[in-house]
Amino acid sequence: MKKFLDDVDTLLEQSLQGFAAAHADLVQLHLHPTFLVRRHPKPMGRVSLISGGGSGHEPLHLGYVGPGMLDAACPGQVFTSPTPDQMLAAAKTVDRGAGVLFIVKNYAGDTMNFQVASDMLSIEHVTVLVNDDVAVESSTHTSGRRGVAGTVVVEKVVGAAAEAGADLNTCKRLGDRANARTASMGVAFSSCTVPAAGVPTFDIGPGEIEMGVGIHGEPGRRRELIKPASVIVDELLDAILADLSPAAGQPVLLLVNGLGGTPLMELYLLQQLAARRLEREGLRLQRMRVGNMVTSLEMAGASLTLTVLDDELLRLWDAPAETPALRW
Amino acid sequence: MKKFLDDVDTLLEQSLQGFAAAHADLVQLHLHPTFLVRRHPKPMGRVSLISGGGSGHEPLHLGYVGPGMLDAACPGQVFTSPTPDQMLAAAKTVDRGAGVLFIVKNYAGDTMNFQVASDMLSIEHVTVLVNDDVAVESSTHTSGRRGVAGTVVVEKVVGAAAEAGADLNTCKRLGDRANARTASMGVAFSSCTVPAAGVPTFDIGPGEIEMGVGIHGEPGRRRELIKPASVIVDELLDAILADLSPAAGQPVLLLVNGLGGTPLMELYLLQQLAARRLEREGLRLQRMRVGNMVTSLEMAGASLTLTVLDDELLRLWDAPAETPALRW
Repeated sequence: MKKFLDDVDTLLEQSLQGFAAAHADLVQLHLHPTFLVRRHPKPMGRVSLISGGGSGHEPLHLGYVGPGMLDAACPGQVFTSPTPDQMLAAAKTVDRGAGVLFIVKNYAGDTMNFQVASDMLSIEHVTVLVNDDVAVESSTHTSGRRGVAGTVVVEKVVGAAAEAGADLNTCKRLGDRANARTASMGVAFSSCTVPAAGVPTFDIGPGEIEMGVGIHGEPGRRRELIKPASVIVDELLDAILADLSPAAGQPVLLLVNGLGGTPLMELYLLQQLAARRLEREGLRLQRMRVGNMVTSLEMAGASLTLTVLDDELLRLWDAPAETPALRW
Repeated sequence: MKKFLDDVDTLLEQSLQGFAAAHADLVQLHLHPTFLVRRHPKPMGRVSLISGGGSGHEPLHLGYVGPGMLDAACPGQVFTSPTPDQMLAAAKTVDRGAGVLFIVKNYAGDTMNFQVASDMLSIEHVTVLVNDDVAVESSTHTSGRRGVAGTVVVEKVVGAAAEAGADLNTCKRLGDRANARTASMGVAFSSCTVPAAGVPTFDIGPGEIEMGVGIHGEPGRRRELIKPASVIVDELLDAILADLSPAAGQPVLLLVNGLGGTPLMELYLLQQLAARRLEREGLRLQRMRVGNMVTSLEMAGASLTLTVLDDELLRLWDAPAETPALRW
């Protein structure tokens, strides 16, 4: 294992301190229990958004804390759920009197721990479950579909609504709607290595790819030989479009997400290939974003995410945000 | 070689088209000759900034085109200099009557081709040569020091000055000063693979690192066994500080740059370790930035860049910019 590392036991905490220092204008770190909050809290009477999950997917979720997106993020150890005490402490810190909305990716550990926190939390709260990954129905750590890069869409859209004063029920309905209209699928060229494990999460041959891989290296639909990028893009979009069934002419948002070890040059090639395919489908590609948004440590690979927009989702996607990883 | 790829011969052009489409609000692509310009040209009477170099270092330079930074970028093939016709066409397109400033990283191909363009260009122009890499004095493709991530500092600082109306000589002096006060050094854990070559640029053992690697995989100072991150950070900063010799109390800017295949979690660990070391040196870490700014395709590794600030450089670093890869 080659990593920048002093001590596996302190890696996360030191990295979080580095993150908080680098983005001190936007965020503030609490330790023991560990969570990251906006430097400047939103006004009283607004719904607060909290997300969290295992680390190793950066910039998710830390990078999306700030005005227009999350109020707090709770990072677990690498690929390990955060604990309920983190969520409770974060909720008490960021509550502005209008309730708390948890955004939870659908993994067994996350849903269980957020549920425990929910049961213990006296502040009014709701949960939006993200399960945008259409690759497989259930998986290593998941009952039902996994939550992957579509989380960014949910965090952005609900974040904008909460910032503008939407109430808790409205935020919940919006989050559920954004999730329902969003579908993703990824492909891996290489594994990643969890620092505490020290060995690759899975083995993959020099000419092989894992179609439908999960963001922790969970198995996808099938192991195949590598094929041209345009074929990969078509297969990913086939699965996504089969799930969403958008009507011709519908406006869509496309995310081309790098899993960590893929050069930007290749991601922009995927953008171009996906855009052409969507055009051939008669869809209107209204917005797009390319980059490393939800990663799997240093995994080589990428995922595509499509959201079928409507006027409200588009307006919320376009609303200002100012976070370490995303601002406009 | 596992890459998202249809055809090596069209990869760059398709990727550029994807980039231009994804950032159509900020940039516009010209093909044959190939260059990328700001969507909204700056006002007449302002100096125009053009940079360029081999592709494969994204987001450099394309990602830094926009208000407050570059007016145009000329991308060559992967790790290959752009040609003079690109630079000439870009200069003619973006000239606003106050002259053109070329920002050139110090590699033989780049300096030669920018020189040819300079010789043919009738518009008033000057060149700032970036050579911030303190690892080695001369290298595979270089006479003198290489230009690496410090290029971002030069592009940001001169870009802000040009935007504010500084004349050509002032921009040139500023760029030279920013370069002289900036030093970088990197380390590689893995090679990268140039798509047209199809095999890794260099071999490196499972426990080895290349200290002082160049951004094309050029040899550094020495091949070593991997060591703790804090030791690596100290060695990189030893070399950088020996070059810059900042006095105690001087304000500095730190860039922690990922070379392409290193997770953000590790980069933020480096940030934290570097910040502590700079504090021990009695320096004032006034600004910092962490991320993949100047990459070597999918190379695992990182570089540190330090700029000794003064009031003017700080003000220009803080000035607004709105580009695909950097905005504040």
